[in-house]
Amino acid sequence: MAKKNSKVKMVYYFGETRTDGKDADKFLLGGKGKNLAEMTAIGLPVPPGFTVTTECCRQYYQSGCKLPEGLMDEIHENVALLEKEMGKKFGDDENPLLVSVRSGAAASMPGMMNTILNLGMNDKSVLGLVKSSGNERFAYDLYRRLINMFGDVVMGVDHEHFEAAFNDIKAEYGATVDTDVPAEGLKELCKAYKAVYKEHTGEAFPQDPLKQLLRAVEAVFRSWNTPRAVRYREVEGIRGLLGTAVNIQSMAYGNTGEDSGTGVAFTRNPSTGQNKFYGEFLINAQGEDVVAGIRTPLAVAEMPKWKTKEFPTLGKDCHKQLLEIKDILENHYKDVQDIEFTIEHGHLYMLQTRTGKRTGNAAVKIACDMVREKLIDETTALNRIPANALTQLLLPSFDPEAKKSAEVLATGLPASPGAAVGKLAFTADEAVRRTQEGEAVLLVRKETSPEDIDGMHSAVGILTSTGGMTSHAAVVARGWGRCCVAGAGEIQIDEKARKIRVQGKTYSAKDTLSIDGADGKVMAGTVDTVEPTLSGDFAKIMKWADRHRTLRIRTNADTPEDAQRARGFGAEGIGLCRTEHMFFEGERITAMREMILADNEEDRRAALAKLLPYQREDFVGIFTAMKGLPVTIRLLDPPLHEFLPHERKAQQELADILGVKPALIKARVSQLHEANPMLGHRGCRLCVTYPEILEMQVTAIVEAAIQCKRERIDAKPEIMVPLVGTADELRSLRALAVETIEQVRKQEQFTGKLDILVGTMIEIPRAALTADEIAEQADFFSFGTNDLTQLTFGYSRDDVNSFLPDYLRQELLSCDPFQSLDTVGVGQLVEMGVVKGRQTKPELKVGICGEHGGDPASVIFCHRVGLDYVSCSPFRVPIARLAAAQAALGHEISGD
Amino acid sequence: MAKKNSKVKMVYYFGETRTDGKDADKFLLGGKGKNLAEMTAIGLPVPPGFTVTTECCRQYYQSGCKLPEGLMDEIHENVALLEKEMGKKFGDDENPLLVSVRSGAAASMPGMMNTILNLGMNDKSVLGLVKSSGNERFAYDLYRRLINMFGDVVMGVDHEHFEAAFNDIKAEYGATVDTDVPAEGLKELCKAYKAVYKEHTGEAFPQDPLKQLLRAVEAVFRSWNTPRAVRYREVEGIRGLLGTAVNIQSMAYGNTGEDSGTGVAFTRNPSTGQNKFYGEFLINAQGEDVVAGIRTPLAVAEMPKWKTKEFPTLGKDCHKQLLEIKDILENHYKDVQDIEFTIEHGHLYMLQTRTGKRTGNAAVKIACDMVREKLIDETTALNRIPANALTQLLLPSFDPEAKKSAEVLATGLPASPGAAVGKLAFTADEAVRRTQEGEAVLLVRKETSPEDIDGMHSAVGILTSTGGMTSHAAVVARGWGRCCVAGAGEIQIDEKARKIRVQGKTYSAKDTLSIDGADGKVMAGTVDTVEPTLSGDFAKIMKWADRHRTLRIRTNADTPEDAQRARGFGAEGIGLCRTEHMFFEGERITAMREMILADNEEDRRAALAKLLPYQREDFVGIFTAMKGLPVTIRLLDPPLHEFLPHERKAQQELADILGVKPALIKARVSQLHEANPMLGHRGCRLCVTYPEILEMQVTAIVEAAIQCKRERIDAKPEIMVPLVGTADELRSLRALAVETIEQVRKQEQFTGKLDILVGTMIEIPRAALTADEIAEQADFFSFGTNDLTQLTFGYSRDDVNSFLPDYLRQELLSCDPFQSLDTVGVGQLVEMGVVKGRQTKPELKVGICGEHGGDPASVIFCHRVGLDYVSCSPFRVPIARLAAAQAALGHEISGD
Repeated sequence: MAKKNSKVKMVYYFGETRTDGKDADKFLLGGKGKNLAEMTAIGLPVPPGFTVTTECCRQYYQSGCKLPEGLMDEIHENVALLEKEMGKKFGDDENPLLVSVRSGAAASMPGMMNTILNLGMNDKSVLGLVKSSGNERFAYDLYRRLINMFGDVVMGVDHEHFEAAFNDIKAEYGATVDTDVPAEGLKELCKAYKAVYKEHTGEAFPQDPLKQLLRAVEAVFRSWNTPRAVRYREVEGIRGLLGTAVNIQSMAYGNTGEDSGTGVAFTRNPSTGQNKFYGEFLINAQGEDVVAGIRTPLAVAEMPKWKTKEFPTLGKDCHKQLLEIKDILENHYKDVQDIEFTIEHGHLYMLQTRTGKRTGNAAVKIACDMVREKLIDETTALNRIPANALTQLLLPSFDPEAKKSAEVLATGLPASPGAAVGKLAFTADEAVRRTQEGEAVLLVRKETSPEDIDGMHSAVGILTSTGGMTSHAAVVARGWGRCCVAGAGEIQIDEKARKIRVQGKTYSAKDTLSIDGADGKVMAGTVDTVEPTLSGDFAKIMKWADRHRTLRIRTNADTPEDAQRARGFGAEGIGLCRTEHMFFEGERITAMREMILADNEEDRRAALAKLLPYQREDFVGIFTAMKGLPVTIRLLDPPLHEFLPHERKAQQELADILGVKPALIKARVSQLHEANPMLGHRGCRLCVTYPEILEMQVTAIVEAAIQCKRERIDAKPEIMVPLVGTADELRSLRALAVETIEQVRKQEQFTGKLDILVGTMIEIPRAALTADEIAEQADFFSFGTNDLTQLTFGYSRDDVNSFLPDYLRQELLSCDPFQSLDTVGVGQLVEMGVVKGRQTKPELKVGICGEHGGDPASVIFCHRVGLDYVSCSPFRVPIARLAAAQAALGHEISGD
Repeated sequence: MAKKNSKVKMVYYFGETRTDGKDADKFLLGGKGKNLAEMTAIGLPVPPGFTVTTECCRQYYQSGCKLPEGLMDEIHENVALLEKEMGKKFGDDENPLLVSVRSGAAASMPGMMNTILNLGMNDKSVLGLVKSSGNERFAYDLYRRLINMFGDVVMGVDHEHFEAAFNDIKAEYGATVDTDVPAEGLKELCKAYKAVYKEHTGEAFPQDPLKQLLRAVEAVFRSWNTPRAVRYREVEGIRGLLGTAVNIQSMAYGNTGEDSGTGVAFTRNPSTGQNKFYGEFLINAQGEDVVAGIRTPLAVAEMPKWKTKEFPTLGKDCHKQLLEIKDILENHYKDVQDIEFTIEHGHLYMLQTRTGKRTGNAAVKIACDMVREKLIDETTALNRIPANALTQLLLPSFDPEAKKSAEVLATGLPASPGAAVGKLAFTADEAVRRTQEGEAVLLVRKETSPEDIDGMHSAVGILTSTGGMTSHAAVVARGWGRCCVAGAGEIQIDEKARKIRVQGKTYSAKDTLSIDGADGKVMAGTVDTVEPTLSGDFAKIMKWADRHRTLRIRTNADTPEDAQRARGFGAEGIGLCRTEHMFFEGERITAMREMILADNEEDRRAALAKLLPYQREDFVGIFTAMKGLPVTIRLLDPPLHEFLPHERKAQQELADILGVKPALIKARVSQLHEANPMLGHRGCRLCVTYPEILEMQVTAIVEAAIQCKRERIDAKPEIMVPLVGTADELRSLRALAVETIEQVRKQEQFTGKLDILVGTMIEIPRAALTADEIAEQADFFSFGTNDLTQLTFGYSRDDVNSFLPDYLRQELLSCDPFQSLDTVGVGQLVEMGVVKGRQTKPELKVGICGEHGGDPASVIFCHRVGLDYVSCSPFRVPIARLAAAQAALGHEISGD
């Protein structure tokens, strides 16, 4: 129901005549359309064409899948202009105009949207093309490709019907491959294809090029909402777009002979970041052949060797021109570009440019290199690296020593870095299922296709036997930071038998392989990995980040080892040291269980006394690892039943150890059972009921601190009371903690400085709401945004998967609120807590220790509301450092 | 650690010389002390004395149970003044001063605090009293009473040791009752008592009256924190007091001969409210004898008959004087007074006055009567009735027809109204235990004592065989509105054998009796009850309330019967109609289970289609009952697993009915299992996943509304979406609801007005926080404060009892937040929701439908934050109406 005579411009032309879209934004033209306009404007050789806006796509869906009124009129005007500029005519029997039709949204979605080439071919224009190209075979080849592609993509005719018809023709002509079929055969094939088309669509193949165009535009719009496109946006977190634009561009033919070709390239290496033009091309092929990974292409570096009798310097010239264009593009965009080009009879045409996706490694190297090259400055460099991409630099890599003795089965292309070890899965579904069952699997495919998205996302690594560095598998894997080795041709995959054969050996689903995305090696069995370190460009980026950020970064660590590792990654303290894990080992768990089973305070104290030395030792270890830095220790948090055995056999064993009746244990387990343990007797509520638990833990902390101080280790414990909901709770427990600290100090006859802070987690909505009262009792606040999210949404983290996928699919939530902080709701409570807390106590130290502390978008929020620090898992510390810098630099979201 | 030379006045004198406490407040002097000062000031005959402040009690506990320094000095000064005014001296051997020592906090706590009489008796003053009274027996009787009471109350010597010594003396003198023992015997008894005292305390009975006083004051302070006192405050919700005051008053002797006596009275009948002086007295007795219920007293109305040879008009004079005092008191206090008096040789002394506790029935009648008498005005009358006390007027009473044929076993005193039917429990512990096990029990005791508090609170009714209308059982039961028949002397209770005998029959723990608190009848078996109605004074109070309140009152009702009943109580609509209960009956549950077991939308729709007609019928019934009034229907809320059988046998049965394998049912149950169902897949989350559920329910609502309208019944449905946390959720579900409404309207070809509102519950903290966004999608808000409390505190209502008692005991919470709304935390979210919601939509209708809607304090909060209505259970509608009026009149908390 779009308005008639709407004044809104729906089509933007680009070409020599004029370029409408120079200053339009990519949300209207899509990334591809915007860049075609921009390249045209800076004088690069771009075949002319026009772009239908994303707004038309939105209107299409809004009006129940009808093309906006007036759109075809505007398209007709633009076709006329294009015909004039090209000197060709749609459907002409002398020199016909052919166009490609491509999708292009504001965010890049490789392989997701449908493309149609050679549009404009019909029974008449095929004759025209024969005339204008002088190549009958070429003309009919284009025609049969159009019928096939149009039938498949626009009309939904299964590709295999066309395949079958082709096989018949090949048999008739004794041809083994497509190219063996002569012009005559292709003529027959066109006839056969038209019959297939009619049989499966109930109508003749449309001869009117404008009708073809109309249908193609609609097909592109439709492809925006296919399940796989929706799924891709879900995985990538792409939201809020209007839809896809449609780019109609005059054809350049990469398949019009041995002096033609097509390719894709990156201005720098997208995997390593090396400043070297990097790409692949196929001679006598159309663009989709490269991306689809069906034929293994040649490296662009080999292009200068390409020559024909007529053009002995063909490859050299093209290569030189490409390098010039590369420099123009990098200087224009100030960033790495991912381009598509076609060479038609030795003439180079640019079909597309976009910001090059890159691995985290490459992002860091490129950012640092470009600063060195003075292309960008330090702050641009910091903003250029998606903080999450650092995950890749923090992945383990294979131990060089272990690799020396590993059995290398094959070497493919190092398509996406990382070290992946897993068992073999042969279909996407299998990869998904086995991952859910807890297995680490490698997805092994001849080549991947968009249907494999889910499986690729599940697998720890992807291994393909065909396809290059720019194949579907490679591009998608790099985007996600998933390890990928592509085109390992030595491997034969038998999907049906669920086996691979290589070097005479067979590996099945039960076997484990190790693949190295850094060098493409495929190795038998499990190869050991080593931990990453911060050095080189990575260290430089971290140095720059530290220079700009104001947020401090702490880590969540429960052991000296984790503490040490986090310190290596730049952690400035421990924001959350959980104490419950400390009670699970050996004798400790027995004492813990004795404590829980005790029915009076005296017995509880006796059991706690056994735990005290262990706890003290734990804390001495952690204080030593973090010497000079603050360590926030959370008192016991989980409900007591988590420490008791629930199985009959384990209960019997425990009964034997403790010398009690199993019925007693069973009774206590059943007494402690809760309908909603998340909302039950846990956190500080335990200390209200059993103050002796708090006394034991605080005693251990203080004794450990004093022991350290006596050994000249500067211990800085901060005692954190969990799950506080009222000021009175904290008042009472703080008093007990302070009293205990003083008692221990007296007993130990310690006269030095202790300065132990007592604070609380803000993780109950009521605590945030009454933060002004609670602050009176607290030296610090630490937002526990995991529980705060559970309670603010009323979502149980353990159960949320029963409905969260529906919410994400229906866009009722923009992301999983446990992954990225819900700034509107939960964030409102966080901000309220900070403001109210500081109203009472301006010097109040405030941090966050939920898992959101390592999520870049959440870090930016934390910076905005004025937290002093974020605390995250050790491996996310560098990510948080970068995100904190980006926040300080006013970056809104990390990544593009 | 009280400060020396503290300037704070610790003791307040009252007497002819001066009355310090005229203008002091009851929080400092306690209710008793304050009223003694006030009565003295208005010229009533009060024995002089002085009051030690509650602040001293606070200091006593604060300093670790030490009397504040300087207190004894102040007491000495006041004793000196008292001696001067009385012309008697402490410990004097001519005319000794004796005093009583009584506790008295700001809130009345009957039977909870310890009292000591005759303090000042010693070996010397006993001789003095013999001289001054000329009655040796009387003097030694007082002495032995003091030693016994002091030993028991102050020193903790078990009463039975004294009892044993007394029995020896009685045997020696061949006496059956106390009064048979001559003076000589009582002299011996004093000696024996002193020996008992020394044996059990290790020291001699203190001869220094000031030392006795010091110890007695401490004992009173100590009694403030005995478990039973703490428990009473817990049950009554008495919090925030400093402690108890101590009243030291010169003794008036009710036990100094047949021309003396003591009694208690109410200026009006506290059970029925009748305007008739009402009380009981005992001749030749001390005050505690009446309250303790050991001897059955005489009615005050009988007093004029009391005469002695010396004073033939003794009773008539006293009675006349009492009636005069009654009028003075009511005119002074403008309320019913509960008094204690003593007559010493024909002289009347007032020992105490306080606001008389009364039943709900009495409160209503008294308020209305006093307005008629122009003692108070209508608004005072409204504020005078604790809204919760109306509960008693809303209790069922026995069906007069059924009573005609009931077998009356005995008739006791109608001590506290109500109709109770239960099995017999013989101890307080038994009553508690069996009540917890789900039985309705009557607590049957000879007399009750403070130790029985828990059992009395548990039982549905209390039956005693001794004691009068002012006995412990009667007073406590009336305070709580618990049905009580007291002094049913025909009943013989054999506590050991756990049996009662009456009229030659025996009843045991397994037998059921019915007791009528309105007329004192004890009946065999179960007598039918009838529902209460609003009439007479109750109706008048409701009319007044409606005149003043601005809040509208709705009800929570799921059936036409409940709806009808609530309408009778004045409900102005249904604020919460839950639909889940509708799916449990007969065939419905089977269809519901089919729906849940379906693994595709088609099967789900088929099962839902079976449920549709039932739902429609339900709604037609409810709309008809509430015609002309709004009915808010909540869509399905609980998680689906609640509808499936969890036991193996039931699963097998269901499998047989549905013709599926039991394993299928078991698998679905296990698939639906949740770690925290409160935070799981329920509420609107179900409709997001299964929109067809919403479609069915909305279809049923609209079809029912149309059917009603066609029958000229004005149906006003309001559709309420539960558990909304984001505006997008509501946007999506509202759109579906609106679409469904229009579809049904079309199908039904209905062209009339429908005006169905679509709104939401605000029960998730995030919904309150984002109420501005949510209001865009809602025609109304209804605060679901049950879930909102669970989530704001992080308390699971099902599990909270594992720690809530500790929280209440330690005063970390002032009350159970599920009973009375936490205005500071949860209330903050409610207020935020109202303000933000109305920012977006000023006309937004806002109510509350949690159980707090029937809690007076919460109703007052709801008024303050500007809600349009509260919704509560049918029986609480009148309570809410009154509370709403009190709120509008600016009353802060209902009750005194």
